[in-house]
Amino acid sequence: MCGIFGIYQRGGDNTAAELTALGLFALQHRGQESVGIAVSDGEQVRIHKAMGLVSSLLHQDIAARLPGHVGIGHVRYSTHGSSDLANAQPLLAVTGSGPVAMAHNGNLTNTRPLRENLFGQGTAFYTTTDSELILHLIAAQAAKPLEEAVQKAVAGLSGSFSLVIMNERKLIGLRDAHGNRPLLLGKAEDSFILASESCAIAALNAEVVREIEPGEMVVVEGSRVTSRRILSHPRRAFCIFEYIYLARPDSELAQVSMHEVRKRIGGELAREHPIEADIVIPVPNSAKSAALGYAEVAGIAFEIGLVTNDYVGRTFISPTQSLRQLGVQIKLNAIPQVLAGKRVILVDDSLVRGTTSKKAIAMLRKAGAREVHLAIAAPPFLYPCYYGIDVPETDQLIASNRTLSEIRELIGADSLHHISLEGLYKAVGAERSTMCDACFSGEFFTPVDEEDPWNFTGGRKEANGDYAGSNRL
Amino acid sequence: MCGIFGIYQRGGDNTAAELTALGLFALQHRGQESVGIAVSDGEQVRIHKAMGLVSSLLHQDIAARLPGHVGIGHVRYSTHGSSDLANAQPLLAVTGSGPVAMAHNGNLTNTRPLRENLFGQGTAFYTTTDSELILHLIAAQAAKPLEEAVQKAVAGLSGSFSLVIMNERKLIGLRDAHGNRPLLLGKAEDSFILASESCAIAALNAEVVREIEPGEMVVVEGSRVTSRRILSHPRRAFCIFEYIYLARPDSELAQVSMHEVRKRIGGELAREHPIEADIVIPVPNSAKSAALGYAEVAGIAFEIGLVTNDYVGRTFISPTQSLRQLGVQIKLNAIPQVLAGKRVILVDDSLVRGTTSKKAIAMLRKAGAREVHLAIAAPPFLYPCYYGIDVPETDQLIASNRTLSEIRELIGADSLHHISLEGLYKAVGAERSTMCDACFSGEFFTPVDEEDPWNFTGGRKEANGDYAGSNRL
Amino acid sequence: MCGIFGIYQRGGDNTAAELTALGLFALQHRGQESVGIAVSDGEQVRIHKAMGLVSSLLHQDIAARLPGHVGIGHVRYSTHGSSDLANAQPLLAVTGSGPVAMAHNGNLTNTRPLRENLFGQGTAFYTTTDSELILHLIAAQAAKPLEEAVQKAVAGLSGSFSLVIMNERKLIGLRDAHGNRPLLLGKAEDSFILASESCAIAALNAEVVREIEPGEMVVVEGSRVTSRRILSHPRRAFCIFEYIYLARPDSELAQVSMHEVRKRIGGELAREHPIEADIVIPVPNSAKSAALGYAEVAGIAFEIGLVTNDYVGRTFISPTQSLRQLGVQIKLNAIPQVLAGKRVILVDDSLVRGTTSKKAIAMLRKAGAREVHLAIAAPPFLYPCYYGIDVPETDQLIASNRTLSEIRELIGADSLHHISLEGLYKAVGAERSTMCDACFSGEFFTPVDEEDPWNFTGGRKEANGDYAGSNRL
Amino acid sequence: MCGIFGIYQRGGDNTAAELTALGLFALQHRGQESVGIAVSDGEQVRIHKAMGLVSSLLHQDIAARLPGHVGIGHVRYSTHGSSDLANAQPLLAVTGSGPVAMAHNGNLTNTRPLRENLFGQGTAFYTTTDSELILHLIAAQAAKPLEEAVQKAVAGLSGSFSLVIMNERKLIGLRDAHGNRPLLLGKAEDSFILASESCAIAALNAEVVREIEPGEMVVVEGSRVTSRRILSHPRRAFCIFEYIYLARPDSELAQVSMHEVRKRIGGELAREHPIEADIVIPVPNSAKSAALGYAEVAGIAFEIGLVTNDYVGRTFISPTQSLRQLGVQIKLNAIPQVLAGKRVILVDDSLVRGTTSKKAIAMLRKAGAREVHLAIAAPPFLYPCYYGIDVPETDQLIASNRTLSEIRELIGADSLHHISLEGLYKAVGAERSTMCDACFSGEFFTPVDEEDPWNFTGGRKEANGDYAGSNRL
Repeated sequence: MCGIFGIYQRGGDNTAAELTALGLFALQHRGQESVGIAVSDGEQVRIHKAMGLVSSLLHQDIAARLPGHVGIGHVRYSTHGSSDLANAQPLLAVTGSGPVAMAHNGNLTNTRPLRENLFGQGTAFYTTTDSELILHLIAAQAAKPLEEAVQKAVAGLSGSFSLVIMNERKLIGLRDAHGNRPLLLGKAEDSFILASESCAIAALNAEVVREIEPGEMVVVEGSRVTSRRILSHPRRAFCIFEYIYLARPDSELAQVSMHEVRKRIGGELAREHPIEADIVIPVPNSAKSAALGYAEVAGIAFEIGLVTNDYVGRTFISPTQSLRQLGVQIKLNAIPQVLAGKRVILVDDSLVRGTTSKKAIAMLRKAGAREVHLAIAAPPFLYPCYYGIDVPETDQLIASNRTLSEIRELIGADSLHHISLEGLYKAVGAERSTMCDACFSGEFFTPVDEEDPWNFTGGRKEANGDYAGSNRL
Repeated sequence: MCGIFGIYQRGGDNTAAELTALGLFALQHRGQESVGIAVSDGEQVRIHKAMGLVSSLLHQDIAARLPGHVGIGHVRYSTHGSSDLANAQPLLAVTGSGPVAMAHNGNLTNTRPLRENLFGQGTAFYTTTDSELILHLIAAQAAKPLEEAVQKAVAGLSGSFSLVIMNERKLIGLRDAHGNRPLLLGKAEDSFILASESCAIAALNAEVVREIEPGEMVVVEGSRVTSRRILSHPRRAFCIFEYIYLARPDSELAQVSMHEVRKRIGGELAREHPIEADIVIPVPNSAKSAALGYAEVAGIAFEIGLVTNDYVGRTFISPTQSLRQLGVQIKLNAIPQVLAGKRVILVDDSLVRGTTSKKAIAMLRKAGAREVHLAIAAPPFLYPCYYGIDVPETDQLIASNRTLSEIRELIGADSLHHISLEGLYKAVGAERSTMCDACFSGEFFTPVDEEDPWNFTGGRKEANGDYAGSNRL
Repeated sequence: MCGIFGIYQRGGDNTAAELTALGLFALQHRGQESVGIAVSDGEQVRIHKAMGLVSSLLHQDIAARLPGHVGIGHVRYSTHGSSDLANAQPLLAVTGSGPVAMAHNGNLTNTRPLRENLFGQGTAFYTTTDSELILHLIAAQAAKPLEEAVQKAVAGLSGSFSLVIMNERKLIGLRDAHGNRPLLLGKAEDSFILASESCAIAALNAEVVREIEPGEMVVVEGSRVTSRRILSHPRRAFCIFEYIYLARPDSELAQVSMHEVRKRIGGELAREHPIEADIVIPVPNSAKSAALGYAEVAGIAFEIGLVTNDYVGRTFISPTQSLRQLGVQIKLNAIPQVLAGKRVILVDDSLVRGTTSKKAIAMLRKAGAREVHLAIAAPPFLYPCYYGIDVPETDQLIASNRTLSEIRELIGADSLHHISLEGLYKAVGAERSTMCDACFSGEFFTPVDEEDPWNFTGGRKEANGDYAGSNRL
Repeated sequence: MCGIFGIYQRGGDNTAAELTALGLFALQHRGQESVGIAVSDGEQVRIHKAMGLVSSLLHQDIAARLPGHVGIGHVRYSTHGSSDLANAQPLLAVTGSGPVAMAHNGNLTNTRPLRENLFGQGTAFYTTTDSELILHLIAAQAAKPLEEAVQKAVAGLSGSFSLVIMNERKLIGLRDAHGNRPLLLGKAEDSFILASESCAIAALNAEVVREIEPGEMVVVEGSRVTSRRILSHPRRAFCIFEYIYLARPDSELAQVSMHEVRKRIGGELAREHPIEADIVIPVPNSAKSAALGYAEVAGIAFEIGLVTNDYVGRTFISPTQSLRQLGVQIKLNAIPQVLAGKRVILVDDSLVRGTTSKKAIAMLRKAGAREVHLAIAAPPFLYPCYYGIDVPETDQLIASNRTLSEIRELIGADSLHHISLEGLYKAVGAERSTMCDACFSGEFFTPVDEEDPWNFTGGRKEANGDYAGSNRL
């Protein structure tokens, strides 16, 4: 996942660090592992990174530490424990033309030849991320102006990448040829903004100008934004999962909010799979929109049957095995008075491992639900993602090698329903030929190298064997 | 506010610390300022406290630090900056009969004579909490068995107090004569539990046995729970605000969940104040139940028009004035596609200062709402609370000295509606004579001493003048 | 041990917190476990404590947190792990006449009857220190002016106590009837100072006025210092160990520096025990003065044969058993070129457990020393201290139940010599009747209660059994 | 300055991390700003760094985090505030042949052409240290075995460098052609050791084998140490300041301890500059050896007239201007009883800025010294160092542009004496042609580039202008 952000203040303010923090704060749902901000005051590029949430950075007086009017930022996602500060972004390096900072959302699929080539040229790597490859490719073109160096550098990349890049004087944003990961351009009175989602632009009281196009690079310098197409794009392949789960409900694409899209997915799900029941409840909190859509179309009452503990977060670490076993009970609780004797349609946004659903269903039954029908606002999740979404190993996907009936039994539902791929596209309102749905269909839009230890999903997995070193702090 | 918890394991387990942490975790919404746990292994009582959330305590290996089978815990609420660890609870003191630990939810209203009397006896105070008074009164009776000492100590108290108290061998729970603050008895296979709310009992997979009665003291020792009435109670005065806002939606009283009560309040509000509109939306997250109730009764679509940033919490501290001014924008965002051109009923649980409502309404209008009608699931908030709820100074209450029309104008709503006190009681299903609604009616159930600097609301305000010292760490 | 400090600024400055920190910094050798400062601005008494060194407190902006012109401070010593912030001093309590803060150096010897009496009156204890007893006795007299309350409170105390006490307006200093622990009065242009040692007065560029007399109390208020004898003193009993080891070499008593006294002790040791040798070397760093004195009188070259790692401190915690076994090697290293083939007189200030000496001697031999003679600037250490010095259990004292010859053999010296008690007094220049030398002689100047679990040496040992509770944080 | 360390355990133990920490602990005097350790278990190279002292690293469980039998470490010195973790060493990078870690003591003098050349090849720099240049030069040769890559990489370096380098399987140590910075080979039963000073070898109970020769590289792999001359050396240029000040007194070179050398320097100083006086005292703690030597030769009593507060360290940060002005008083105190009426010879190891000497002399006079003669165990300090010693800007050197008489007056001494360069060499026992004394003579042994912003002394100064970026964390 990851979220990226960039800002260029042209009105004389030097608060890029704070505004970047604010933008990252709105993108926090895209990554909670680490956060970083780089800022230029026109002469120097300074950087500050921290493990954890954006709030941890804010405590560290970034406004004073990072003065300047050009800034980029990054929030990083990981479910692995082996995260460390050296892998946090932005990455900052001094090249022959001075400092360059970069933040990357996405994942490259041709890291092996890129890396071998750079190794052959004597390059030393400091991190275990695919993103560092891009930085070395830019440095190799340092004699050129930054935009040309970047254009040259990304020409040989395969995979997914939305990038924000800066030096002392310029802010650059670009998307890969397929437009797999999102990136939008925003505008406030005195600044231009780049962000993974519109909610980060809204957080600054700024307006969305438009999406950056697949293969497009925009360069902000002074009061001008220039655009050029730097990559020809055989086909658009925007990530369908952004609509289903990733983007915040108040984020919008093409003037449509994610909340509305998800309501429509829920509605389509209801049309495809009508179920006799008394109430529709969401798995909190991500499936609320879809459940509301299902309830409206089905004409069944929307209810709140499961409550989350708002204070459960990354910070809750069960200190002992005994407490760990109580897991979901800590995060979720059922309301028996709502559920007792009822036929319940439980709506969830997707079914990946299935562990949460299984526990939620058991909890509903214990609270008295007479029937529990699980309706999923996505097709069965069958394949890994090579483009930046953290997906479990294939053998941990509940839908892998199981019939629908086996899955239903495993999770204990009275019935189990997924929206069809067709229904999904109908609800989203997009042509399938413009999207990536490889996690459901296995149709990857680039060749992928399953054997490459560096071809890690989301840039988060540690390389193995000989390449395990990193400037871990 | 504050939340209290107690557990007595009688089956040989010595995990009272962890289970207390788990219980407090479910009560976290009642207090986020500090947390503390005291545990006895039958011979020693050990204690651990920390500023912040329960999770911060869990990082500190309390299981190993606090072995034992009897435990009590406390979470403390404060909106003031002047909080400190010395005022955190439980309080632990060594008396003539050994250690006694105590956690208090509520607020005393006769602290002045109690304190003067103790001062006259040469007592030294270590904290600036009213709760410490109770501990000294217990210590003064240390020659007696603990339950008798407690009974004697609380006989002279006025105000509100639910208490959990322990020594090396016993766990005691009691409520004041009016039953103002909640306290329930729970039971698992091998343990007895005391907790402010049923959700903390559910979190341990235990069953609610019953509420502790007003004026009742229960003593747990070995496998026995004994009960005695220790305070005659002229009248019950349970806090109505627990139903409106304080308790978690999945907590229950008399087999009714707070969610249901709030839905009924929302429904009654719709009956009292029918409004022509297109959608009903809640102020997230606390007004969801009431808004759902309103929507159902009014037959108007329930929608999600405001989205919160889930990562905003106590840890987000705006580092600069410029960011502070963007305040609510960080926490809330509107979804224009839902709101544009719509007549909106915005439901909130209560209207205290009015600042959040004002900003939310402006945000809805900016997002295109044609009309915004504010419906409040509580009567106008007019009086301070002397029984443990943190309420702003009276002159900061928006309803104080303003007509409904002035308030409406101030917050920018097209119309403003409160449920009536009668409607509220109808929805709650309780006799007014058994409840405290002083915040709405000004009818305090005990004399209150407005001039006493120690008569602080919620036990959190700092004493002034000469008494300002405390063992602040 | 412990060090105490007090200051009263009468010139309008409000920097008592900083100056107290500076004074404590000079007294840091008397205690490194915890540090605390209490300050009054004339209206409020505020306090701040921290585990560890004074420097850790300075990082916490005490100047802003603790504004005011009256301050007291305390550094606390402990070799035990079971230390905690709740036991740190000063202690601050609110009494019937307002806040009182107190810092104590010494140890009471009649805690049992004092405590039983206070328990009988219903007193609750918050710490496991004997010092808290004194605070309760003062609070019990709160109706009186502070100086009278203090006078009354200390009348019943037995043992050793130098105290600094303050309320919003007054600073009080006093010593027990025997003057066992030191306390001096100092004076700068605009302030009066109380401190355990003259080096803390010198650190503020102030002048020593005089020692506080045994049984004397001085009260500073406004521009006046008043004195009264509050305890009759049967006999003076100043701790001889202050001369031998505790006080800093640049501290002075009766215009004589500790360095000079220790040089004279070393000289007397040389006269009592002339040894044929090539060089005299100290155990660094405490025995330098004595070794210099020995060398001068003996006419043998003073040399540096052992070097310490200046960075070894409380913060060095060997992470594993294997490193722990290398222990002394980390702290000490020998210089073979100085020692090879030499007959060495190794001078140490005292011989308590003997472990360091044993290792140092082995190290000298390994470095080539031909002979190693150990000369100790104190008599054999045979008894525990009940007056505030942290001494190992008697069975860990190397001199307990061993002949001189056995000790010599155990530590591996060619010969072992202690100065005699007579020689020691001759060097110190004091009458034995005015000093306490109980650690050498067993002649305690008060009755002692060996069975009392609260009669802990130095106020650091945890109470046992029923009394183990404390508001440990 | 900086200190470096390396260890290769060949006996099956995997405690290289701990032993490296222990070795660095003995080298702590060479750098207190940051510390780092890299360890290989034969397959992976892991690294851990921290700001501050070695002890801060030990708290972080490096034994478990860094398992393995090959390790290198580094302590870094800085007097500048602009230090950061990204500049800490060792540096670790992944090259085409796998991970390489490196630690550097010294300073390059041809960074400008090296850097321009690497920039021309498209290299990206992550730190602002000259050391990173070396790592890139090694990576550029990654196709070769490590020892050949290193040999090739260092061939083009000018300046001073002692290096320890490792990959998964090998440990390499080498010194520049002039042998400017020290590096010794040590041996324990089961391991080979490389260290900047012998005290780090002694700390592991190991034996010094010999110095690494100028231009020599040793490679440790398995049970074999192989050596090769990789750089022809026109002349040896060992840093004279190691003898005067840098090395620990118990460290030895050519079987002579630094303590002895410094005593001899003090003695020679006494012969060159006999002074009529009563006592000789050192500026604590570094001038003890020289003062002892002076006193012995002069036949004047060695005394202790100035005492340091042992707890003053890097952690003491004066919180306010008022305290800062009291500066030296906190660190030093005089003993008036030793000094009153005396003619004092104050011995210091060198006179750089002169500020400490000035304050010490004023302090001695205030304590009653009748005369104060300052004797310096080094010639006047006149030039900057380009080889790794942190020296103030030339205009801050007290000897720059001042006559001896002007300096004497400025610092307030009755007389001022420096040892001559000839006397210094006589005492050290070395030919001038084998040493670097550029700080005294201005005779640099390589060309130096005063204009290069990256040619920073000690690798600690921040680069300016365009090159200011770094992956600062």
